[in-house]
Amino acid sequence: MQIGMMGLGRMGANMVRRLMRGGHECVVYDINAASVEALVAEGAVGATSLEDFVGALKPPRCVWLMLPAAITPKIAGQVAALMAEGDIVIDGGNSNYRDAVDQAKRLGDRGLSYVDVGTSGGVWGLDRGYCLMIGGPDQAVRHLDPIFSTLAPGAGEGVSADAPTAQRGYLHCGPSGAGHFVKMVHNGIEYGLMAAYAEGINILKAANSGNQAREADAETSPLAEPHYYQFDIDLAGVTEVWRHGSVIGSWLLDLTSEALKKDPALEKFGGRVSDSGEGRWTLKAAVDTGVPAPVLSSALFSRFSSQGESEFADKLLSAMRYAFGGHVEKPKE
Amino acid sequence: MQIGMMGLGRMGANMVRRLMRGGHECVVYDINAASVEALVAEGAVGATSLEDFVGALKPPRCVWLMLPAAITPKIAGQVAALMAEGDIVIDGGNSNYRDAVDQAKRLGDRGLSYVDVGTSGGVWGLDRGYCLMIGGPDQAVRHLDPIFSTLAPGAGEGVSADAPTAQRGYLHCGPSGAGHFVKMVHNGIEYGLMAAYAEGINILKAANSGNQAREADAETSPLAEPHYYQFDIDLAGVTEVWRHGSVIGSWLLDLTSEALKKDPALEKFGGRVSDSGEGRWTLKAAVDTGVPAPVLSSALFSRFSSQGESEFADKLLSAMRYAFGGHVEKPKE
Amino acid sequence: MQIGMMGLGRMGANMVRRLMRGGHECVVYDINAASVEALVAEGAVGATSLEDFVGALKPPRCVWLMLPAAITPKIAGQVAALMAEGDIVIDGGNSNYRDAVDQAKRLGDRGLSYVDVGTSGGVWGLDRGYCLMIGGPDQAVRHLDPIFSTLAPGAGEGVSADAPTAQRGYLHCGPSGAGHFVKMVHNGIEYGLMAAYAEGINILKAANSGNQAREADAETSPLAEPHYYQFDIDLAGVTEVWRHGSVIGSWLLDLTSEALKKDPALEKFGGRVSDSGEGRWTLKAAVDTGVPAPVLSSALFSRFSSQGESEFADKLLSAMRYAFGGHVEKPKE
Amino acid sequence: MQIGMMGLGRMGANMVRRLMRGGHECVVYDINAASVEALVAEGAVGATSLEDFVGALKPPRCVWLMLPAAITPKIAGQVAALMAEGDIVIDGGNSNYRDAVDQAKRLGDRGLSYVDVGTSGGVWGLDRGYCLMIGGPDQAVRHLDPIFSTLAPGAGEGVSADAPTAQRGYLHCGPSGAGHFVKMVHNGIEYGLMAAYAEGINILKAANSGNQAREADAETSPLAEPHYYQFDIDLAGVTEVWRHGSVIGSWLLDLTSEALKKDPALEKFGGRVSDSGEGRWTLKAAVDTGVPAPVLSSALFSRFSSQGESEFADKLLSAMRYAFGGHVEKPKE
Repeated sequence: MQIGMMGLGRMGANMVRRLMRGGHECVVYDINAASVEALVAEGAVGATSLEDFVGALKPPRCVWLMLPAAITPKIAGQVAALMAEGDIVIDGGNSNYRDAVDQAKRLGDRGLSYVDVGTSGGVWGLDRGYCLMIGGPDQAVRHLDPIFSTLAPGAGEGVSADAPTAQRGYLHCGPSGAGHFVKMVHNGIEYGLMAAYAEGINILKAANSGNQAREADAETSPLAEPHYYQFDIDLAGVTEVWRHGSVIGSWLLDLTSEALKKDPALEKFGGRVSDSGEGRWTLKAAVDTGVPAPVLSSALFSRFSSQGESEFADKLLSAMRYAFGGHVEKPKE
Repeated sequence: MQIGMMGLGRMGANMVRRLMRGGHECVVYDINAASVEALVAEGAVGATSLEDFVGALKPPRCVWLMLPAAITPKIAGQVAALMAEGDIVIDGGNSNYRDAVDQAKRLGDRGLSYVDVGTSGGVWGLDRGYCLMIGGPDQAVRHLDPIFSTLAPGAGEGVSADAPTAQRGYLHCGPSGAGHFVKMVHNGIEYGLMAAYAEGINILKAANSGNQAREADAETSPLAEPHYYQFDIDLAGVTEVWRHGSVIGSWLLDLTSEALKKDPALEKFGGRVSDSGEGRWTLKAAVDTGVPAPVLSSALFSRFSSQGESEFADKLLSAMRYAFGGHVEKPKE
Repeated sequence: MQIGMMGLGRMGANMVRRLMRGGHECVVYDINAASVEALVAEGAVGATSLEDFVGALKPPRCVWLMLPAAITPKIAGQVAALMAEGDIVIDGGNSNYRDAVDQAKRLGDRGLSYVDVGTSGGVWGLDRGYCLMIGGPDQAVRHLDPIFSTLAPGAGEGVSADAPTAQRGYLHCGPSGAGHFVKMVHNGIEYGLMAAYAEGINILKAANSGNQAREADAETSPLAEPHYYQFDIDLAGVTEVWRHGSVIGSWLLDLTSEALKKDPALEKFGGRVSDSGEGRWTLKAAVDTGVPAPVLSSALFSRFSSQGESEFADKLLSAMRYAFGGHVEKPKE
Repeated sequence: MQIGMMGLGRMGANMVRRLMRGGHECVVYDINAASVEALVAEGAVGATSLEDFVGALKPPRCVWLMLPAAITPKIAGQVAALMAEGDIVIDGGNSNYRDAVDQAKRLGDRGLSYVDVGTSGGVWGLDRGYCLMIGGPDQAVRHLDPIFSTLAPGAGEGVSADAPTAQRGYLHCGPSGAGHFVKMVHNGIEYGLMAAYAEGINILKAANSGNQAREADAETSPLAEPHYYQFDIDLAGVTEVWRHGSVIGSWLLDLTSEALKKDPALEKFGGRVSDSGEGRWTLKAAVDTGVPAPVLSSALFSRFSSQGESEFADKLLSAMRYAFGGHVEKPKE
């Protein structure tokens, strides 16, 4: 079927490619003309303006937005202004699910449908397929089924072509907003999983602490029983072996092991870890609903700390220690 | 090759079966005679006493202990007393790695080798194979290679028979103690992963909080904007779809999805979550080496709370609230 | 000076008393007529309706609201509708600071001032005085200075009558919203402090764990080295001694020690700890601004757990443990 | 009475001064002769060697050690070797309570008593008095009562001279080890309290985030609703006002407010926060006894992070993000 894709970055462009491979007709648009041209060369229909883009679509028009969360609401409004009753706007980005709830109400008043699709899979989705978490009105979601079916991993490895859609990698989770809500929590979990591996591997790395000399001053806590910390652990090897038969095998572990093989000291990285919204919204949802989320919040706050945001709090602690005990700070290493 | 297995519980018995399938000769012993007989019926050589057990082995004798952590050191000593120079004791249980460090020194003085093998795979290991994290002297570990090779998942799915052992599911991690150290951290990570999924799914479950009436008293925090919490999420469906193409796919997720399909409300469970040592030791290792582990510790402490261990702390909080503000506790639901 | 007080609960009624002691004229109103009468008997001017209440005030009218957060915005609007340019509405409740930001804009358009006053002191404020964190336009805050000065602890113990207001217990923190923002964080910190004491005292209580028998099954983690946990600590005594010369002395500790003296086992309490909004909003502010708050969030989440909200997450953990390892849950004690 | 003090650092020297003010005879020793001389000039009896030191004491000899935890057990052994039945060794340092349990057993076999005294008060103790948490045999503790009574804050402010000792600032908490156990938990709580204030004040500092420009790239989470974050909070003023009538008043808050007045940006500090053992041991005791301590552990781990110990974990997170999503790290600021 025909679909329009706006936003041809890393995710959007690959999704167009996967859709075209699946026989769909893709009309594409981006403010960066080069991105449009690249996909036109691969068989897409290109557009040069928003009007041109919407004009190239046949009713009921389906426009998939793959844009940064910050600008999606505005662009969705502009697109919707050019559309008519029965048309469908899809937001596949990392938007706040609340925008989808609000947007669906606004567009619904005009007879348009708003479908929010949480999309996971990253740079691997082109080949692996994307996991799609979908919110929106039944009819619109049904109409888009061929698109979802192509984007998702689909049948294979024990999954037949007529298996429930969840087994083929896409799920209609509920009304507008439900898709992004589920994706939000997905990313909240992702932060927690990543942190669990990172903390554990960091402990393995410290397993040889007993071999290292420590300063013996009052500001340094001594290592008791250093003979129990004499292991030089091969982190790439351990993460590899965990992939085979252990309880903690996962795709994230596969990637971690690969990364440690290529660059055991991870010298390419500085340790400033970004967070992109969903982790924060997950925590706010936990707070709103009164659900304890100590692991997910710890994972998020570790990222904030890695961004330098605990600095003033740390200075306060040092100031207190100096005030009550005359403790002088050791310099940062 | 020949090996003796002592401790024929869930794990030990299945490991004997997998070893016999691989063509090894297994001498088996357990204080429970029925467990011995069951395996004898399947082809193992049974023993009726510790002396009988060790006597049935040919030098260099290899005894694999698969016992509760609490009794392993004592039994290991009894077994070792019956053995001679060149023999090997293997501890495959969930023992503290410090015991292995200590034990190896004691046995080494008599010319015996102590090999600690962290074993992951649970009830699935019989068919999937076990992930083995090994510590011990090179020569002993090399001698046991046929055993490890059979127990581990082995070649298959893009892994050739001569691939490095880590790819086939076993790894010599370092001297005695290194195997259990790596297994300890493995379980610490496991706690973190499990908690990340559990917290996230609990938030999904609360996504319909806006539909529920809340008491409007001073002791109940109101839900702001209830219209954003109106989703009835199909937890079994969502955990299934996440298995296909998403970033958070894992074996634990596979099992979680299966459990939610069978029993969506998890009515079989009461919510008292045991912990079995490694999570605790991981945290102590983090503390000793000064490595931050906020996620792993949060996961552990949630288990302690589920066991009722925060009760007195909670009462203290209520007592303080009553003292400064006259707040009267709402009854437990 | 004259002031109107609406909301004569625990806090509001005592504030009226303290104001009258300070020579101020108080017009009082509450939907509960008995609360009005009680204060009339002590010298206040009573009102029987909102109109009556506002009508009894001389311009510029000053109305202090001391109401539950959930109804404050609505009542503030009703009161404001009866007021004229130059009048002042004060919200002294535990409202979300965002309401004050919004309300100030609305009322400001009509020439009214909105002053938000975070009020700490609990049931002790009548005699100790209240700590006041104030947000609002300069002129209105200046006009109310005699009121703030009376409500706050004031001069004494090394603080002279002309000391900066912060030393006398009240502070103009910034424009509308700033007062409740500071009070919000105050309560966030309060949760953290309370939890720190509660966790520590809970550890002291467990100092005799080594004297208690533990089940020796695979689902119970054994206590290593029980001879190090043989102390029966007198919790009331320890919290008392900490009040004298230690680094952790505080008013909360004073109250805690008092509570433990009266009821060492805290049998009056069940351990269900309410939270009343500010702790949640503090966490959301931390998330919005990217500031790590692991301690404040842990304290909040412990309260959620005490309310039973971790139950489904805990069941999920048990379900996973059963699925991968066949672990059967121990019953809740 | 007569007492010997060994270890004349910040704490030890001031304790000698307070004891001499109270009329006690102090024999002092330190490997630093200048420290000895300084106190001799103030009236103490100086010693030039360990033998000389012990020789100057009359039976039953009482030696108070005020030494770094790392060397205390060794020195305690050397001192004890020179002593006789009925003599008393006191450890007033920040030692692990387990050392006291072990030491008491060893010394007890020879008829000596070992008394462990957790000592809080920092540089302020000379004038405020020290809070003393005492473990040891009844008779020895009773014998030392005049010493404890002088070191502790004592009577005053509503505490009469015959009030229970806890009210006068010292408490016999139990057998040997109990004093240091209580002091350990005291410091664990101290970490939690300090972190609660530091996190909260850090949030106040960020209350003006809405005024600051943020990068609008995919690696920076946008600040929703910046108009709610426009407050420039006077941190010194707020911490001052909290000292007067609020629920969170404490001695630590007094010191924090003082520090912020002197140096509002805390420019003297870099934010590397040391930890000195007790916080770690508290966490290990919580783990051993199965008591949840999420707040105390979060506080400890924040210190580890401030020491740079999360760096490798952070790099792992960035490596994973790059691997699954092609996310490129933003440089550290």
